[in-house]
Amino acid sequence: MVQLTVITIGALSSHFKESVSEYEKRLSQFCTVNNVNIKESKIADEDDRTQIENALSEEADRIISKIPVGAYKIALCVEGEMPDSIKLSEIIRKASDTSGKICLIIGSSHGLHDKVKQKCNYRLSVSRLTFPHQLMRVILLEALYRSFSIIANKKYHK
Amino acid sequence: MVQLTVITIGALSSHFKESVSEYEKRLSQFCTVNNVNIKESKIADEDDRTQIENALSEEADRIISKIPVGAYKIALCVEGEMPDSIKLSEIIRKASDTSGKICLIIGSSHGLHDKVKQKCNYRLSVSRLTFPHQLMRVILLEALYRSFSIIANKKYHK
Repeated sequence: MVQLTVITIGALSSHFKESVSEYEKRLSQFCTVNNVNIKESKIADEDDRTQIENALSEEADRIISKIPVGAYKIALCVEGEMPDSIKLSEIIRKASDTSGKICLIIGSSHGLHDKVKQKCNYRLSVSRLTFPHQLMRVILLEALYRSFSIIANKKYHK
Repeated sequence: MVQLTVITIGALSSHFKESVSEYEKRLSQFCTVNNVNIKESKIADEDDRTQIENALSEEADRIISKIPVGAYKIALCVEGEMPDSIKLSEIIRKASDTSGKICLIIGSSHGLHDKVKQKCNYRLSVSRLTFPHQLMRVILLEALYRSFSIIANKKYHK
């Protein structure tokens, strides 16, 4: 069974808990889901680029230490590729076949440090719109569930 | 205060209720939120294009009858424009200033009939990925909340 690791920053708000649980339950037929929650680095002044850069760098070190060895790594970034659901399912299928381990990395509201992005196999952009990283977790779990359903040739995707 | 009408097809799954409620509560500082839920037309054979077309046409008639007169109408469609959050907030600001009424229309899993799209002022595409229309409701409420926050110059958007 495929091992899916989802690395996120900061705690999950209560109003997203039910949808995250629901998708984790659905995903359990296709993969094991391992959640890794990274502590968010505090930024005193949200307009200070140096403080943001330092916080992202600290978070990056914590993220990198948690990536499973040999995993196919997908980083969420606004400048990434924008696949449709069929294309994403092909990426997930290949990653499942070759490595058996997939690691999804969702940064904080300031994104991800370049040193994380450079380690990743694929940079994924879901939308040009900005979303809170916690909603992004729900969105990506849905996208992964749809990918596995497409691979399994289930009726879910229309 | 701006009047926001959200037209959706079919019932909301329980695992999205909390996030929808949370965004409706947040939006209440900027607008009134009126939910209109349209009955989904049944399709016996999901692979039959004629049945799908007929169902979409029936749903479209019900949708059109519920659009508030004079509202700025935004239809969610995969072939629509893909604005970033700043651009979307400009669209929402103009619609708020000129009409004071905004109507968001989210179709079923088969999308929206052309006769709905043709009545709309703006066709919005959030992602190339396919999402269930119920998660799309959460996503769009978030996008609207972010738009109003940007217009009000609040700290929410980063």
